[in-house]
Amino acid sequence: MKDLSRIRRAGLEQKVMTADEAALLFSHQMVVGASGFTKAGDSKEVLKALARRAKNETLQVTLITGASLGHDTDARLAEANALYKRMPFQVDRVLREKINKGNILFTDQHLSETAELIHGYLPYIDLAVIEAAYIEEDGSIVPTTSVGNSVSFAATAKKVIIEINTAVPCEIYGLHDIFLQENYPHRNFIPIISAEVRVGRKSIALDPEKIAAIVFTHQTDSPADIAPPDAKTTAIAAHLINFFENEVKTGRLTDRLLPLQAGIGKVANAVLAGLEKGNFYDLSMYSEVLQDSTFDLIDSGKLRFASASSITVSESCYKRIFDNLDTYREKIVLRPQNISNAPGLIRRLGIIAINTAIEFDIYGNVNSTHIAGTHIMNGIGGSGDFARNAYLSIFVTQAASKEDKISHLLPMVSHVDHNEHDVDVLVTDFGLADLRGLAPRERALLIINNCAHPDYKQELLSYFERACELRQGQTPHILEEAFSWHTRLRETGTMKRI
Amino acid sequence: MKDLSRIRRAGLEQKVMTADEAALLFSHQMVVGASGFTKAGDSKEVLKALARRAKNETLQVTLITGASLGHDTDARLAEANALYKRMPFQVDRVLREKINKGNILFTDQHLSETAELIHGYLPYIDLAVIEAAYIEEDGSIVPTTSVGNSVSFAATAKKVIIEINTAVPCEIYGLHDIFLQENYPHRNFIPIISAEVRVGRKSIALDPEKIAAIVFTHQTDSPADIAPPDAKTTAIAAHLINFFENEVKTGRLTDRLLPLQAGIGKVANAVLAGLEKGNFYDLSMYSEVLQDSTFDLIDSGKLRFASASSITVSESCYKRIFDNLDTYREKIVLRPQNISNAPGLIRRLGIIAINTAIEFDIYGNVNSTHIAGTHIMNGIGGSGDFARNAYLSIFVTQAASKEDKISHLLPMVSHVDHNEHDVDVLVTDFGLADLRGLAPRERALLIINNCAHPDYKQELLSYFERACELRQGQTPHILEEAFSWHTRLRETGTMKRI
Ligand SMILES: CC(C)(COP(=O)(O)OP(=O)(O)OC[C@H]1O[C@@H](n2cnc3c(N)ncnc32)[C@H](O)[C@@H]1OP(=O)(O)O)[C@@H](O)C(=O)NCCC(=O)NCCS
Ligand SMILES: CC(C)(COP(=O)(O)OP(=O)(O)OC[C@H]1O[C@@H](n2cnc3c(N)ncnc32)[C@H](O)[C@@H]1OP(=O)(O)O)[C@@H](O)C(=O)NCCC(=O)NCCS
Repeated sequence: MKDLSRIRRAGLEQKVMTADEAALLFSHQMVVGASGFTKAGDSKEVLKALARRAKNETLQVTLITGASLGHDTDARLAEANALYKRMPFQVDRVLREKINKGNILFTDQHLSETAELIHGYLPYIDLAVIEAAYIEEDGSIVPTTSVGNSVSFAATAKKVIIEINTAVPCEIYGLHDIFLQENYPHRNFIPIISAEVRVGRKSIALDPEKIAAIVFTHQTDSPADIAPPDAKTTAIAAHLINFFENEVKTGRLTDRLLPLQAGIGKVANAVLAGLEKGNFYDLSMYSEVLQDSTFDLIDSGKLRFASASSITVSESCYKRIFDNLDTYREKIVLRPQNISNAPGLIRRLGIIAINTAIEFDIYGNVNSTHIAGTHIMNGIGGSGDFARNAYLSIFVTQAASKEDKISHLLPMVSHVDHNEHDVDVLVTDFGLADLRGLAPRERALLIINNCAHPDYKQELLSYFERACELRQGQTPHILEEAFSWHTRLRETGTMKRI
Repeated sequence: MKDLSRIRRAGLEQKVMTADEAALLFSHQMVVGASGFTKAGDSKEVLKALARRAKNETLQVTLITGASLGHDTDARLAEANALYKRMPFQVDRVLREKINKGNILFTDQHLSETAELIHGYLPYIDLAVIEAAYIEEDGSIVPTTSVGNSVSFAATAKKVIIEINTAVPCEIYGLHDIFLQENYPHRNFIPIISAEVRVGRKSIALDPEKIAAIVFTHQTDSPADIAPPDAKTTAIAAHLINFFENEVKTGRLTDRLLPLQAGIGKVANAVLAGLEKGNFYDLSMYSEVLQDSTFDLIDSGKLRFASASSITVSESCYKRIFDNLDTYREKIVLRPQNISNAPGLIRRLGIIAINTAIEFDIYGNVNSTHIAGTHIMNGIGGSGDFARNAYLSIFVTQAASKEDKISHLLPMVSHVDHNEHDVDVLVTDFGLADLRGLAPRERALLIINNCAHPDYKQELLSYFERACELRQGQTPHILEEAFSWHTRLRETGTMKRI
């Protein structure tokens, strides 16, 4: 496990220590940056050792990552009371509960923006923890299955702990495109005009003097738990594939489509699986996360190239990638998240963005983050970077859930992450609404008619009609009634009138 | 007035006709594109002639512009029943009323996105009406005081009517930077790395075959009505200038600041005026609209360069610009609105964006468009392009209005245009809240304490505390009560408890 050949910079082997020793480097109120994006390339040892330490003493840090961590690390840190503030994203059940109780602060950010704050506003990162495959002769580090914010952490942190993961083959070298944007006002353009363009180096620059500890691990990433397609996700995917085929027919898209971004989860997987059939070819992805379906599409010859910030896949796919790195190195690239999610690249490439909504409303506003307007689920993630700037911004969700007691289409969303200006297409298992160029009153009729669960359709229409009559406006609403469905659910356990 | 020397393309003089003759080219259900951005460079004759014609026959069009029109044109068109749908922006009282009654459809769009839809999705423009200073030998046209969407209209419209405005001197040539983005998937980067970089040509390409009519006019733009600074705008500007000075002290900004974007209106004017004092120098603007204050700052030597899509100024400033075109041509540039508002340029340049809110809430969500959640005021304009992608996104508003019966800070905004992820700094006449890096519960306390009108502070605090206790969550709210202030205003004429 302690494979010293992975420390190619002379002198650094002295920095090797155990995770518990490294954890002594943390102190109360530090700002910590950690690698990890959607469970990929995260610290496997040191953050857990920090949690152990924090159980027995007052030790709370602000923890900034790429995105979510794996291996219950966020849960352990939360339980040990080790977190004062967490940013910019999380998906952990235990952590979420503490955030919603107000015990841990959570700064929920557009994933492209965290690096801006690290370079321009946040207090300096005191200590960074970065997983690496190995350390190069020049002290630079080769990351593993994600890049996330690690480039910015390495550039700005006062001290860095490297976790060398020997479960990741050194042949991962070349999978990354490491590009550090110039600080303002000296920033130049990012010359990426297609998903496969590489503009940077293969390892992350790091001043070896800043390396305070090197810890070895041999643990793979937490596998993605991918629910198999079910009737609903299959229906959503079918509506979407049908829409794409129609766009091709009208000449607005070609069979090559445009670069795809797909949010995590089973719907995205189902849509990508749907692209295997049909005439689509020479596809590309410019996304945040690569899932199993990405690799299936590559293997089937449909997907030319995929760019993202992380690889989050099942155990078997993980193995398949590592066994075939020579092939995949020509087909995928991992970038810093401020590049994978750069607003200008999303607009320039003309991305087709597919993300999931928790709920949406009759005018096409989308809530991606909050249950009942108050309780955070995960966070906005990259959905805001993509939805605002994409060529086509698509949101998908089931029309109803929990034995249809909850309608995901509402008079008004209880929290707005994406407003009607940002949402081009809505899809549920019942149908698809193409909202481009439409005014709110047109949107309402189309959304209700195409996307509502039948049990809720009449009442939605009635709300819309009464709002038009009673209050009028560009966006008719009866404010006293707008959240009544949420209230009914809380009081009676269902959104249905009894 | 009919100055034929302004038609430098041989043969085109045959196309000269009156506005009423040109108006015969419109037909029912056409899609019409028209120049004009914030009252600048709009059609002075033909659209009014269209309104006259529509009074007497069924003639309704979809009208797409750059942004708002001057000279009551939108009012006349609305009154004549000539509009089926309007996009992407308007500011007209009469039109607004018809939109809010549901008689005219209004598609309210991010100003950078309309060109994307014109090239990629909307039905072709049947007829465009574009104001020009003159027509070049090659048939290309030199625009006047705005560029807006005219480049896209000229490229895609089936037929074009040119309005030559002889009130605009031909010496305006060289003020514009005309750049047409490649269609997907062939789009390249826009090599602008500073406000003053020019990347295009000086006139708008146009196939002379498409010119269906040429109409002469000699009317200047509607002047901007600039309210003089008052106690509130002066207070807001002072808080903001103080904030900038502090950013310079901490080293996060230099005295050159970063390129400024400023929304229209008196607050923006007051802030820019404030920059004349103090140590700021070598400033630049990368904005949508240039107002009087821009030219004052240029003349005082503080502002190095200003880029925008239009010039909307008072009558005297208009004259001053035309009298000194040789000077200003080196100091300002007008671009297409998908370039002035390009997401990638806003991020790349590190814009400081200052826009106005109608209302905002305790978590920092902003409503820029809807009164009481239903009635549109103007539209989102470019505020969404800038707020999402800027380095610093600032929103300003008075804390209360209408003899303080209306609080502009609320438990929950009645409509969300900019969510908490997009809003870095909030300023009212009572103070400023710097929200960067803060979680919602932290934001709430800071916003209420720094920005609330004193008459409303206690009740806002009470709402927040009760929401934390009663409902908890990342973003505590009591949904049944969230809009109660709006309801109270509607029912009692004031948001104050009586
Ligand atoms: C939005 C998001 C949470 C959806 O996740 P998902 O698991 O695919 O969505 P589902 O519809 O299956 O689940 C939503 C849950 O909320 C519940 N829910 C929805 N509306 C509700 C309401 N009003 N009250 C209570 N519960 C509600 C559903 O019942 C469902 O519960 P379950 O998980 O117990 O079944 C997830 O995609 C996300 O975090 N997105 C934000 C980040 C992002 O988009 N990143 C983009 C790139 S990675
Ligand atoms: C938001 C916007 C309408 C603010 O305009 P403004 O005139 O500077 O703002 P004010 O605060 O003076 O006016 C807001 C009005 O709404 C009223 N108002 C605010 N909240 C209200 C409420 N809840 N109920 C009723 N009226 C309300 C105010 O009383 C005020 O009325 P008045 O005009 O009769 O005085 C304007 O900036 C805009 O259209 N912005 C969107 C476009 C944009 O931002 N573009 C950016 C680049 S140009």
